[in-house]
Amino acid sequence: MHRYRSHTCAALRKSDVGSTVRISGWVHRVRDHGGVLFIDLRDHYGTTQIVADPDSPAFKQAETVRGEWVIRVDGLVKARTEDTVNKNMPTGEIELYAQEIEVLSAAKELPLPVFGEPDYPEDVRLKYRFLDLRRETLHKNIVKRTQVISAMRREMGNVGFTEYTTPILTASSPEGARDFLVPSRIHPGTFYALPQAPQQYKQLLMVAGFDRYFQIAPCFRDEDPRADRLPGEFYQLDLEMSFVTQEDVWNTMGPLMTKIFEEFAEGKPVTKEWPRIPYDEAIRKYGSDKPDLRNPIVMEAVTDHFAGSGFKVFANMIASNPKVQVWAIPAKTGGSRAFCDRMNAWAQSTGQPGLGYIFWRKEGEKLEGAGPLAKNIGEERTDAIRTQLGLGDGDACFFVAGDPAKFYKFAGEARTKAGEELNLVDRDRFELCWIVDFPFFEWNEEEKKVDFAHNPFSMPQGGLDALQNQDPLTIKAFQYDAVCNGFEIASGSIRNQSPETMVAAFEKVGLSQQDVEDRFGGLYRAFQYGAPPHGGAAFGIDRIVMLLVGAKNLREISLFPMNQQAQDLLMGAPTPATPTQLRELAIRPIPPQKKD
Amino acid sequence: MHRYRSHTCAALRKSDVGSTVRISGWVHRVRDHGGVLFIDLRDHYGTTQIVADPDSPAFKQAETVRGEWVIRVDGLVKARTEDTVNKNMPTGEIELYAQEIEVLSAAKELPLPVFGEPDYPEDVRLKYRFLDLRRETLHKNIVKRTQVISAMRREMGNVGFTEYTTPILTASSPEGARDFLVPSRIHPGTFYALPQAPQQYKQLLMVAGFDRYFQIAPCFRDEDPRADRLPGEFYQLDLEMSFVTQEDVWNTMGPLMTKIFEEFAEGKPVTKEWPRIPYDEAIRKYGSDKPDLRNPIVMEAVTDHFAGSGFKVFANMIASNPKVQVWAIPAKTGGSRAFCDRMNAWAQSTGQPGLGYIFWRKEGEKLEGAGPLAKNIGEERTDAIRTQLGLGDGDACFFVAGDPAKFYKFAGEARTKAGEELNLVDRDRFELCWIVDFPFFEWNEEEKKVDFAHNPFSMPQGGLDALQNQDPLTIKAFQYDAVCNGFEIASGSIRNQSPETMVAAFEKVGLSQQDVEDRFGGLYRAFQYGAPPHGGAAFGIDRIVMLLVGAKNLREISLFPMNQQAQDLLMGAPTPATPTQLRELAIRPIPPQKKD
Repeated sequence: MHRYRSHTCAALRKSDVGSTVRISGWVHRVRDHGGVLFIDLRDHYGTTQIVADPDSPAFKQAETVRGEWVIRVDGLVKARTEDTVNKNMPTGEIELYAQEIEVLSAAKELPLPVFGEPDYPEDVRLKYRFLDLRRETLHKNIVKRTQVISAMRREMGNVGFTEYTTPILTASSPEGARDFLVPSRIHPGTFYALPQAPQQYKQLLMVAGFDRYFQIAPCFRDEDPRADRLPGEFYQLDLEMSFVTQEDVWNTMGPLMTKIFEEFAEGKPVTKEWPRIPYDEAIRKYGSDKPDLRNPIVMEAVTDHFAGSGFKVFANMIASNPKVQVWAIPAKTGGSRAFCDRMNAWAQSTGQPGLGYIFWRKEGEKLEGAGPLAKNIGEERTDAIRTQLGLGDGDACFFVAGDPAKFYKFAGEARTKAGEELNLVDRDRFELCWIVDFPFFEWNEEEKKVDFAHNPFSMPQGGLDALQNQDPLTIKAFQYDAVCNGFEIASGSIRNQSPETMVAAFEKVGLSQQDVEDRFGGLYRAFQYGAPPHGGAAFGIDRIVMLLVGAKNLREISLFPMNQQAQDLLMGAPTPATPTQLRELAIRPIPPQKKD
Repeated sequence: MHRYRSHTCAALRKSDVGSTVRISGWVHRVRDHGGVLFIDLRDHYGTTQIVADPDSPAFKQAETVRGEWVIRVDGLVKARTEDTVNKNMPTGEIELYAQEIEVLSAAKELPLPVFGEPDYPEDVRLKYRFLDLRRETLHKNIVKRTQVISAMRREMGNVGFTEYTTPILTASSPEGARDFLVPSRIHPGTFYALPQAPQQYKQLLMVAGFDRYFQIAPCFRDEDPRADRLPGEFYQLDLEMSFVTQEDVWNTMGPLMTKIFEEFAEGKPVTKEWPRIPYDEAIRKYGSDKPDLRNPIVMEAVTDHFAGSGFKVFANMIASNPKVQVWAIPAKTGGSRAFCDRMNAWAQSTGQPGLGYIFWRKEGEKLEGAGPLAKNIGEERTDAIRTQLGLGDGDACFFVAGDPAKFYKFAGEARTKAGEELNLVDRDRFELCWIVDFPFFEWNEEEKKVDFAHNPFSMPQGGLDALQNQDPLTIKAFQYDAVCNGFEIASGSIRNQSPETMVAAFEKVGLSQQDVEDRFGGLYRAFQYGAPPHGGAAFGIDRIVMLLVGAKNLREISLFPMNQQAQDLLMGAPTPATPTQLRELAIRPIPPQKKD
């Protein structure tokens, strides 16, 4: 017989009754039922119930074992009696009558329990991560994460992508977030950087002729702690394709992601045909470029109904500034004064002056618009608004007025709030879409200049001609995001592979050809030697796994996370370097100084 | 029709004749045959021949294109005439008669040619890596590399392993090679380290209960340039298993690797049943723990034949020191004075005093041993040696005498030299084996103390009892290597998961329990809380790919390698940090100083 096991803790079935077997695992739980000991023995695969009564030669040993000890058990497989069968356990029809128990590894008193899902302080969990990982949900989440990644690899392979690994010790990228730096020992005074993303490398791969690249890519950003991003490293499903338009990327990745979501959605519906929503439309309808499409509320402009109306606040705003619009946030089933007042109070709590509303109720045979706004604008306009929005008895509508560029975010939050409060959001589904036609540039109010809105490597729609002849703030990019349930899960674009267009784009934000050469030399040089049209995307794996397992905390889907102070409490990092290390690297830490 | 292509450059066949199609790619070669232009258009998948004659509307455009331009071609698929069919090309039965050509990206004059396999300086190749990667062999090698890795993932999955990703920003490891350090911005004066290997994490995964782990793991060692290792990062197929003995690792990984080798060996034979050769035996037979088993030479001790013989140099050595042995290196077909003298001269060139030999030749009916040694020891001993080694007419034998611990390496080199010079080595096969039972400790002559011979986390054979009661230099470890054709391709062990045994082992090399806690706190702590018996290995992916593609240079199987000075010439790294970066990280480079 094998030294440690003939079966895993998930393997034994009724058909094994009568066999003598050997299993090993962790003592999950010990129960003493009137002198008979029941041990739940756990391994990666499952749990098996061990029984030892005083007649068993293993009884004495069984009495000594404690939770989380690792033991080997030899025993006889017995059928459970009808009334003790556990149908929820794959091994629930049998138990193992212990004949010999060997302690393979004892355990000290546990700093946190493994059995159950106890609430325990973060720092203890992270320091004893190897224990926390034994928890059923975390173990399951981690395994699911590996399965999701494995499915991504499989599906990418199935549609002709090849996984290429790009360097981790590379050059500092002057764009984007802050780099982690790595001092060079051989070239004192210089540094490598860890990649924020393999953006330049994947484009170089296209220029090198590799056609369809993907990578489960580690990315590194030295950012300040954020709730939605673990410090240090994160993973992307990074991909790039040559000789494609943006439709090719959407047509490839949309169905692929739907398939992966469906594989792990446990029956929840997943969008099959992803809507392609232009950025401007997303802002107008949802007040966000990451709309949660499970929320049925669609905002509409109702400016005309307020222009010249008796509601002077809005009417005057509209009259004095052509940019001003009034947006309506229709809220079906929200038609009570209590709810509308609650929304108004919430708006005030976020710093808004308030949130105007109308709600409709039946008065006898007649639908009546209620609330101060309805009174001010009168019955006809109130009903026109109701008709436009398709509202009826028991529904409400909220109104936000001003320059949409300034209020759309708040309007989007109000939409979310109303949808959630009214339970209009169907939580048990995955709504996926592409947000497309992002603006290429944006106005930097602080520096009074034009900046790249997103990826400077994207191709502007209209190309060189647009850059030369169009108001830059009206230029769209071949740039898109994928969004699921209100979260951005991917970002991508068709790249600007023309050196001439690249320089023209950078000139718009005040950078010269020389700057481009200095900062993106590898890529810029490559584009001089035959660069195919190409584009791609990067999907955020951590976010996708969180959505699929329903986790709220990144630490519930990460194997060995750092804490929010960017410390690895398990291994003890970061730590001071030794004098030898510092000398070899020719660097010296600067002690903290007072600022002038 | 698609914007860029209806087919790839490898897709068109005779059955497509008559179709109008669109393809895009790089201009591989342009030939002008009496006014008719032939363009070989290349993409990731293959090559298609384009034809443009002066009647073609695309002729003018075709005349302008140059090598490595990216173009789109619309045209009519035509059958080639019988005498122009190229059977070596998948598309060799057709050509594309160009009707329209669009230049998607022109190319400047190339700094290195892509067509053919030209000899070009390393620094140009690396700076223009995107061009070098277009070379047929390099492109093929890189694709094969991805296929090998993909096959590893597939096969590991098939035998129940799950891929877990371990952190890249982690703690400095006080053992082994030099770490790359990453300064922490949030905790000034402290550093993360990049992992030299995920050794501790994979063991923690076992303690956490995950059973069968693998990872295509990036590893980082800040070592001085070596011919057989690229600076910076390299990749391992890293694996670990719980509840196993070393036989389980061998029985799992041997057949799996054989399968992978066979998949890519292009018909060359691959060892099916890997021999398990104890370390001592490998040294004795092959003078190396990385024996090339394609070399049929097996060394044997022939000490007795020289003890008390007329060859006084050896006889006196044997008499004066019981450690002294004489090893024979039999060399079939090496029986000529010219060859034996060449071996002797080679030995002297490596700093040895010489290499004694005997060779046998027929003198009439009699086999005669020739050379000075034969004369000195006489006919009877000479023939006894010949009989022991199974040698005959036309064969030779070389002799090395002394303390085997001191001469085995040289003896192994002589074995290799003889095998290669005599063409005894069958180059067209993959000979795989396990080297097992490595010594746990070794003697550190400089510090006059016992050191770990290999992995300090390995389990000593005999466990705690051996550590307490046995001469440490005689203790073997449950430690093994995998070897292919003379190269180590993997190393592994059963781990020491008992805290008590771990402390006892470290005490032997002069470290205390406190040292263990300080240096390997995460692991040592974990072993206190129920650690399963576990073991594993790590296979060197770069080496395996090199063997499979027959590359001599790591740069021929790596995508974006650094040069031997650890510089990335393509992206420009390492570089000085900006003052802002240095201030944020609170470090200061120290200018080079004179040493005292």
